[in-house]
Amino acid sequence: MFDLIIIGGGPAGYHAAELAANSGLKTLLFEKRAVGGVCLNEGCIPSKALLHTAKLYDYAKGGAEPYGVTCQNPVLDYAAAVKRKDKVVKKLVAGIEMSLKKAGVEIVRENAVVEATVPVARGTPGTASPTGFSVNGRQAKHLLICTGSEPIIPPFCAGAQIMTNREILALTEVPETLDIIGGGVIGLEMASLFNSAGSKVTVYEMTDKIAGPFDREISGLLQKTYEKKGVTFKLNTRVETVTGPTLVSVGRRAATAGNGLETIGVHTENGVIVTDEHMKTNIPNVYAAGDVNGKSMLAHTAYREAEVAVNNIVGAGSSRPGGAGNNAGGTVSNAGGKTPPLRDRMDYSAIPSVIYTNPEAAAIGETLESAQAKGFDARETRLPMMYSGRFMAENERGEGLCKLVWHDNRLIGAHLLGSPVSEVISTLSAILYNEMDIERIKKIIFPHPTVAEIIKEAVFHGT
Amino acid sequence: MFDLIIIGGGPAGYHAAELAANSGLKTLLFEKRAVGGVCLNEGCIPSKALLHTAKLYDYAKGGAEPYGVTCQNPVLDYAAAVKRKDKVVKKLVAGIEMSLKKAGVEIVRENAVVEATVPVARGTPGTASPTGFSVNGRQAKHLLICTGSEPIIPPFCAGAQIMTNREILALTEVPETLDIIGGGVIGLEMASLFNSAGSKVTVYEMTDKIAGPFDREISGLLQKTYEKKGVTFKLNTRVETVTGPTLVSVGRRAATAGNGLETIGVHTENGVIVTDEHMKTNIPNVYAAGDVNGKSMLAHTAYREAEVAVNNIVGAGSSRPGGAGNNAGGTVSNAGGKTPPLRDRMDYSAIPSVIYTNPEAAAIGETLESAQAKGFDARETRLPMMYSGRFMAENERGEGLCKLVWHDNRLIGAHLLGSPVSEVISTLSAILYNEMDIERIKKIIFPHPTVAEIIKEAVFHGT
Repeated sequence: MFDLIIIGGGPAGYHAAELAANSGLKTLLFEKRAVGGVCLNEGCIPSKALLHTAKLYDYAKGGAEPYGVTCQNPVLDYAAAVKRKDKVVKKLVAGIEMSLKKAGVEIVRENAVVEATVPVARGTPGTASPTGFSVNGRQAKHLLICTGSEPIIPPFCAGAQIMTNREILALTEVPETLDIIGGGVIGLEMASLFNSAGSKVTVYEMTDKIAGPFDREISGLLQKTYEKKGVTFKLNTRVETVTGPTLVSVGRRAATAGNGLETIGVHTENGVIVTDEHMKTNIPNVYAAGDVNGKSMLAHTAYREAEVAVNNIVGAGSSRPGGAGNNAGGTVSNAGGKTPPLRDRMDYSAIPSVIYTNPEAAAIGETLESAQAKGFDARETRLPMMYSGRFMAENERGEGLCKLVWHDNRLIGAHLLGSPVSEVISTLSAILYNEMDIERIKKIIFPHPTVAEIIKEAVFHGT
Repeated sequence: MFDLIIIGGGPAGYHAAELAANSGLKTLLFEKRAVGGVCLNEGCIPSKALLHTAKLYDYAKGGAEPYGVTCQNPVLDYAAAVKRKDKVVKKLVAGIEMSLKKAGVEIVRENAVVEATVPVARGTPGTASPTGFSVNGRQAKHLLICTGSEPIIPPFCAGAQIMTNREILALTEVPETLDIIGGGVIGLEMASLFNSAGSKVTVYEMTDKIAGPFDREISGLLQKTYEKKGVTFKLNTRVETVTGPTLVSVGRRAATAGNGLETIGVHTENGVIVTDEHMKTNIPNVYAAGDVNGKSMLAHTAYREAEVAVNNIVGAGSSRPGGAGNNAGGTVSNAGGKTPPLRDRMDYSAIPSVIYTNPEAAAIGETLESAQAKGFDARETRLPMMYSGRFMAENERGEGLCKLVWHDNRLIGAHLLGSPVSEVISTLSAILYNEMDIERIKKIIFPHPTVAEIIKEAVFHGT
């Protein structure tokens, strides 16, 4: 009998497994492919390795000239870059495997299928029924579902030679042309990569803007920047047929099929597993974290959800299968008086997101638009990135923007364009987490000169 | 009659001037050279512009090869890089001048000399004497001294052709050899710049380590990295004669002479103006901010000190020259019952510092050594930077380190090596400002993948 079985070894699953085992839980992790999941093996990390190569190639092709550095015959050995990317991924996978081993996590390389060991009162939230389940024959007190997500493939792609994030990151040659369906984060990062690498890139987007929920002005500036670099954008455009090399990046859907989750009655809605703020599903002792709950589909959200799930499993550690006190309804109840209260809850209000284009875009919290839609009396201040001395020193003709969204003098959102805002946005995570108002933010000392100082500048000079 | 006269238009002075004028004070700023001071004109900003060029040149010279990018005949046009640097500085100076003008600050381009208009009871702290002063004939209710600092030139340099930060940043040719006396921040950044640019660099350091108060291990790693790049370090070495191109960067001293400060009895100790936590000197209505008070000699400290000074001047705004309630002793007293309390105080515990070498080093708060010297029961956790997936993706063979210093589960210091920690350290500024303990830090959501995530990784995996 395991204390915890985890299905899926992506960011949510491997992080949860390590934490749980280090907390003393006997933990089993199922992963049919490589640990690290989509993010590490065919998403975040490989794309960043290749985007770094692309940035260096841009410098070699003349991008360094304004800074006084030139060279001749720049060559991109794309196959070598991909080989290096694979090496980086392999090292990181090995690192995770080592951490899991050190923590004492047992890993099973199989597709996991859940079976109910005792009949379950299906769909009765909050029922402290004598639930039991086994996964590929192993029994556990708690189950954590981290099966992630998979790319959505629209019907018109049936039979066509399309690529998802997996296939495009495995290419070893640069295609002459590249059509990208979907102008979200993945589409834009691949547009950036292959535009630099030499492809003729066209991005097709169904809505009237790129970059999904990103601030409209930032999205527009990013689009203009890439138009200048030669990328074509077709907005408000629904693609109907596919010819030539095509990346499909129209979104991802929770991976809820093929693991027998229905046999224990895990509740889904619109294709995602429904979880409460404790990451609990409707079934006692069954949790879900990461993309599969459809909350934000970001690796760093998955990490934090994994922590919440494990903290609550550890906090509920004295309960036994069949015991009282499990709380599937989302509020902390303590039915039997014997279970310690749930210890951690998930907060989705301060989750940053980044687009690793060149320049980078990053955002956290509300846009003015989303804040107003929620009825907040919000206001926005804005400042061009050139108010940062370091940005000026390192970005010739670099356009960039910092927008801050305020509610009653409290910062509730930030939206930035200009490298390296991917690294700057963490400071805003810390600021939003601490619910800081303008007077307190003014007292944070930012090192000079940094791009991060734009936060201070925008607080003092934003209009 | 001005509300405030400020002497010196560097980071402390120009920031204070703008804030004061925007707060409604009639403000006069004296600056005999360009606004922006040493930092903008011959320090932080020019060095960062040139170091960016150096980094790009390193990539062109083969540094991009591990990432799959090569080119031939890399050329550094150093004169062009310097010209660009001058252009960046000029733009930023113009930006500050515009902000000052917009705020309504009057600027006088003269050396400022203070005169007492009414006899002062010298050296009697806390005396609410009928102080008055004029600066080049202009009278003011308050005086803020921001005269900055100047390089220390040791006696053995007398008559020798040496360079300070000013002259070295104005060079338009790369010297064949460069001797650097003093292995502190300025010395190391110039070593980095000219090592990349092609000089044979030797750094002479009197103590047993480089990088001044930086963590000993980080300093050692940085030294090793630069030794591999061809820089020679001579530690525990006292230079006695100078031959060939030589930068003298052995430290800076407060610039307290030549402005008549002694005529109004401003108290100095060990060559710096003594200020309290409100940035007040011993003389009523006279404040000092920035390098001249010798507290930390960093531009971002100067900014914050300027804010404290102005907030307190504005807070004390109802007092009149000769009125009661001025507080020179450092504690908030309210002698006449008519003066509002001082509103802001300077905290030196969360000031970051950065060395913009390649890789960068950054630090904030206590080292284990300094914490233990203060009697704290401190402990340290450490993690190699390769635990950051993004660091791995962007740094082939890159060594780096993150060290965190804890006291009772509260983070009190952080020490990092590996680019771009200059941008990462701001998150630690926000964390230290908010006095966060480990459980709260764990709940900050860092975007994945970023180098900033090393903070989270070190919190979870540091040993």
